[in-house]
Amino acid sequence: MKQGSEEQLNSAFAALADPVRRALIARLSRGPATVNELAEPFPITKQAVSKHIQVLEQSGLITRTREGQRRPCHLDPAALEALTSWIDIHRLTVERQFRRLDTVLDTLKEKES
Amino acid sequence: MKQGSEEQLNSAFAALADPVRRALIARLSRGPATVNELAEPFPITKQAVSKHIQVLEQSGLITRTREGQRRPCHLDPAALEALTSWIDIHRLTVERQFRRLDTVLDTLKEKES
Repeated sequence: MKQGSEEQLNSAFAALADPVRRALIARLSRGPATVNELAEPFPITKQAVSKHIQVLEQSGLITRTREGQRRPCHLDPAALEALTSWIDIHRLTVERQFRRLDTVLDTLKEKES
Repeated sequence: MKQGSEEQLNSAFAALADPVRRALIARLSRGPATVNELAEPFPITKQAVSKHIQVLEQSGLITRTREGQRRPCHLDPAALEALTSWIDIHRLTVERQFRRLDTVLDTLKEKES
């Protein structure tokens, strides 16, 4: 899927809307881990963790490799960056609008005084 | 709601997981607008747009003010920043891990040659 496409944004933002999936991302940011390793600290079943990992994989936020018997999950920083890029474009636009408004207000104040 | 709390992250990321709501955010980044103004370019009913705006409002991404008869919606840049902050912490951590791995690989290569 094209990174930053509407579908990818839909599924990646939806993937982040869950505290277990965010905790999995936080864990994977410190290094790759298998499903068993990821499931260990959670008070939910391995099956439930496995489903969350599938959602993350389908969203493109994580990838899985094969190393012999192990199939570790890896966090993809480029997929995370596509999300911050989308958000930042709009955040910076609105902040620019605020600054423009401040300038107008300052000019009006100067004219008054 | 505390900004950056688990509940706020849940609802704000879920709010961004919809293309109509992202289009509304893009529109509001250019300046405040009423529900009627926001609904105008969309090929869906004003009621449907209204529901999406409610979701955005509940997530804290937008706020509404009263100006006489008008109740314009405003995009909150701080709420957007709370989301990029969360993502960036984990993106920067994984990128640091990658750099560390590169250094280890470079050292191994040097020892080999």
